[in-house]
Amino acid sequence: MRRFVADKAKTLINRSRTTCSSSSPITTSTSVLQRLTSSSSQSPAVLRFLSTSSDSMASDYSSTPVTLNNVNPKVLKCEYAVRGEIVNLAQKLQNDLKENPGSHPFDEILYCNIGNPQSLAQQPITFFREVLALCDHPLILDKSETQGLFSADSIERAFQILDQIPGRATGAYSHSQGIKGLRDTIASGIEARDGFPADPNDIFLTDGASPAVHMMMQLLIGSENDGILCPIPQYPLYSASIALHGGTLVPYYLDEETGWGLEVSELENQLKTAKSKGINVRALAVINPGNPTGQVLAEANQREIVEFCKKEGLVLLADEVYQENVYVPEKQFHSFKKVARSMGFGEKDISLVSFQSVSKGFYGECGKRGGYMEVTGFSPEIREQIYKVASVNLCSNISGQILASLVMSPPKVGDESYESFAAEKEGILSSLARRAKTLEDAFSSLEGVTCNKAEGAMYLFPRINLPDKAIKAAEEAKTAPDAFYARRLLNATGIVVVPGSGFGQRPGTWHFRCTILPQEEKIPAIVSRLTEFHKQFMDEFRG
Amino acid sequence: MRRFVADKAKTLINRSRTTCSSSSPITTSTSVLQRLTSSSSQSPAVLRFLSTSSDSMASDYSSTPVTLNNVNPKVLKCEYAVRGEIVNLAQKLQNDLKENPGSHPFDEILYCNIGNPQSLAQQPITFFREVLALCDHPLILDKSETQGLFSADSIERAFQILDQIPGRATGAYSHSQGIKGLRDTIASGIEARDGFPADPNDIFLTDGASPAVHMMMQLLIGSENDGILCPIPQYPLYSASIALHGGTLVPYYLDEETGWGLEVSELENQLKTAKSKGINVRALAVINPGNPTGQVLAEANQREIVEFCKKEGLVLLADEVYQENVYVPEKQFHSFKKVARSMGFGEKDISLVSFQSVSKGFYGECGKRGGYMEVTGFSPEIREQIYKVASVNLCSNISGQILASLVMSPPKVGDESYESFAAEKEGILSSLARRAKTLEDAFSSLEGVTCNKAEGAMYLFPRINLPDKAIKAAEEAKTAPDAFYARRLLNATGIVVVPGSGFGQRPGTWHFRCTILPQEEKIPAIVSRLTEFHKQFMDEFRG
Repeated sequence: MRRFVADKAKTLINRSRTTCSSSSPITTSTSVLQRLTSSSSQSPAVLRFLSTSSDSMASDYSSTPVTLNNVNPKVLKCEYAVRGEIVNLAQKLQNDLKENPGSHPFDEILYCNIGNPQSLAQQPITFFREVLALCDHPLILDKSETQGLFSADSIERAFQILDQIPGRATGAYSHSQGIKGLRDTIASGIEARDGFPADPNDIFLTDGASPAVHMMMQLLIGSENDGILCPIPQYPLYSASIALHGGTLVPYYLDEETGWGLEVSELENQLKTAKSKGINVRALAVINPGNPTGQVLAEANQREIVEFCKKEGLVLLADEVYQENVYVPEKQFHSFKKVARSMGFGEKDISLVSFQSVSKGFYGECGKRGGYMEVTGFSPEIREQIYKVASVNLCSNISGQILASLVMSPPKVGDESYESFAAEKEGILSSLARRAKTLEDAFSSLEGVTCNKAEGAMYLFPRINLPDKAIKAAEEAKTAPDAFYARRLLNATGIVVVPGSGFGQRPGTWHFRCTILPQEEKIPAIVSRLTEFHKQFMDEFRG
Repeated sequence: MRRFVADKAKTLINRSRTTCSSSSPITTSTSVLQRLTSSSSQSPAVLRFLSTSSDSMASDYSSTPVTLNNVNPKVLKCEYAVRGEIVNLAQKLQNDLKENPGSHPFDEILYCNIGNPQSLAQQPITFFREVLALCDHPLILDKSETQGLFSADSIERAFQILDQIPGRATGAYSHSQGIKGLRDTIASGIEARDGFPADPNDIFLTDGASPAVHMMMQLLIGSENDGILCPIPQYPLYSASIALHGGTLVPYYLDEETGWGLEVSELENQLKTAKSKGINVRALAVINPGNPTGQVLAEANQREIVEFCKKEGLVLLADEVYQENVYVPEKQFHSFKKVARSMGFGEKDISLVSFQSVSKGFYGECGKRGGYMEVTGFSPEIREQIYKVASVNLCSNISGQILASLVMSPPKVGDESYESFAAEKEGILSSLARRAKTLEDAFSSLEGVTCNKAEGAMYLFPRINLPDKAIKAAEEAKTAPDAFYARRLLNATGIVVVPGSGFGQRPGTWHFRCTILPQEEKIPAIVSRLTEFHKQFMDEFRG
């Protein structure tokens, strides 16, 4: 019943979307994705029928004032597939399994839809949690029992952090950009990483990277004439945020053939096309390491990108949240700020925002909602505007702020925690590298599937050459072919992946995103379930 | 130098605002406030001069792409006085005092601008912090030393909470609405408070109340034709959020003469006026207990308000974050949901959103960024839209989620922590009541000042009848008269208050908001500094 209503709502949304995009000069974010991914063909008659039916469905709420016809259309346009339809189905199946064990051909749901390491049993880094606990309850810092429970350096660090907080008030709103002393620590961490100066006044601590991205979109997008260049495939936070702020997503395609390469000629072409349609392109978003694509940009490529932004007057929005997730020895992470500074571009030469998060890296502290953006190359007047927007929400959560400082300043050689910390870090990162390789090999060995290497980040984005019969079946089921595949995969194996249509892909190609995060001991079983499903699927649809 | 640039930016903002508001059908949020508060008279010539000068100031950044001319104009329009100009000055003075002790006629800055209790030395509630620390570092739960450091019921509660978190993963993203088990606890707390059922699926946990307010504004505001009825004076989160989402603030005045009474006739008049200007009024925001005004609504008044929303088809946005802050025996907090249900209005009769926060109450855990909204009376289709918007940011921070559950389910009689918890709570609330009374009496005794009672919340909002000479001096200084007073007060005493212009006030009246939060032992000195300053100010300007 609820799913029925949900389907109706979706149809209405699609209808509203179709109406809106026709007036948009290039196509808004979602309609780009739709154009790239949709092969369904719902007739207006079907839509009319469903919407009439939905109106009567909603009659229970007929006296309430908010309806799909008068809700903000930007909200309707926004999509976020990482927690979309497939995940809703997965939650339903999980309930089934709980209530009726044995009701499905698997005994657990494996959430490979989202980069959420600790939900798949990854353990937190001990040192980080020790410090957080001590900062939450500073009364125990002086107690003798505390020394038996906590490492000496976590106690010392907690004291240091408390001293950085005005009045040691861990329960007070902080400065709108975050606690100054923690920003000092983060700036030092950036300097150590890049070899170039970093200014604590450039740091804005945020509840994860997402609010930081929203803040920049809010600043840059005044109307649908304002465009943001985004990779396709892209992490759908970008399309969602652009849709919510009423702007236009200007897509540039990553080149799957060259391992999801980012070609400047493609940027130039798309910029030209957008300009010819009257779009004022404000910024270029780059995700490095890539999400969902896993590539790590080469430094020479980054230099070209910086040159391009400088030449075209674009803000460079650098999503660098996977900076510690690089799994191949031949690649290395370089921050865009380091690259720009090493090219001789200073503060006043290029506008560059780097996003970082405590949710990713080897620590994967998603639930703590910590992160920051480093904002460089904006005039004082504009900085005041960013500060004002940050102020309206007062500040980000203090535990997340503390964790962001720890991530950028972990234990050092000689600290009591160093060895256990280094072992935890190395254990997680090397296991992630092995898992990435095993899953990549498994995907690549499937009939009709090719899979680029996950050089970094937490995902594989294999391409499936679906048989025509499967594409036809998907059309009949009124769903995108990759969503059709993902739904079948979930129903058969309990494995949750996100269809490529949620990220965008070249027309006529089909993919899915799968995280590399399941526990290592579960990987062989996952591989065999996946392989068996895929064989059966292909047998059924090979035609 | 930086202040100079800031002033320039402000002038440009004002210019841009003036341009924008002329095209707005009723006046947008900020221009309403401006109209209500501003008596300055900058000539176009002055503006031109300053803006030319500012352009040359910005020449260092002349090659960067974002300028005040191409930034999102909605961002320029947004104002948030609680952290505005006076606070920037206070921070400057604080630095002065640090670098040159004795450089001002006071030795500390007293931040009475913001409801931030722990920044003024209020201590956290021990039980809450114990549970948070244990949930942050669950490895210590089984250790023997832990029993020496933590109360038995905090250990038990931490175990209960961990069992509610899938996989006990406190570092994982949760369900987009928040951890189900914690929402169950919160729903039970609401039921216990109201005596009416509450559904955990109606709860959306958020990083404080502010993101929840933004989420609802985002849903309701599609263009500047969408209006939200807001009290004047109001907490500027509302005007800021409406400005950022491009809607129209439809003001209704609270009646200062009747203790900031909320008259339904005023709502009706303002609604009619707005409608006649083509505004589609979507919702009524009510802050109870009031901010900045401190009044607690009578239940009969609340019933009228519910009737009004029902009759006019408005969403009732009930800001109830001060629900535990009531200081007078003759008043009691009633949630709007309880009032609506007791009138016989069920889920499908009225759309009602209640906002709650861990930042307020007696606990004042502002830095934890916890809160929730209880969303009732929306159709499943609209609920899915709210869920989707929540999903884009993944989830609110888990510590804040846990704390929100603790706030709605504190220790009970018989629990080990109960007595110390009750003593901490009673100590804080009774002290707040005494402080409110002392400060109210002090303000009321000043020449030309009247001050309504703080029945609840954390603020007093005294009215100052400023002498003409002071108003003239303010005009000459190109500032609002209440800002002129607040700035003089700060420079003379180190006391930071927020001018009434930041909240809106009837034209020609002047106020300021002062929290009741300074430590009780400091109140006598504050009163005498304030009294002395006011006397001198009046002597100077009495004319």
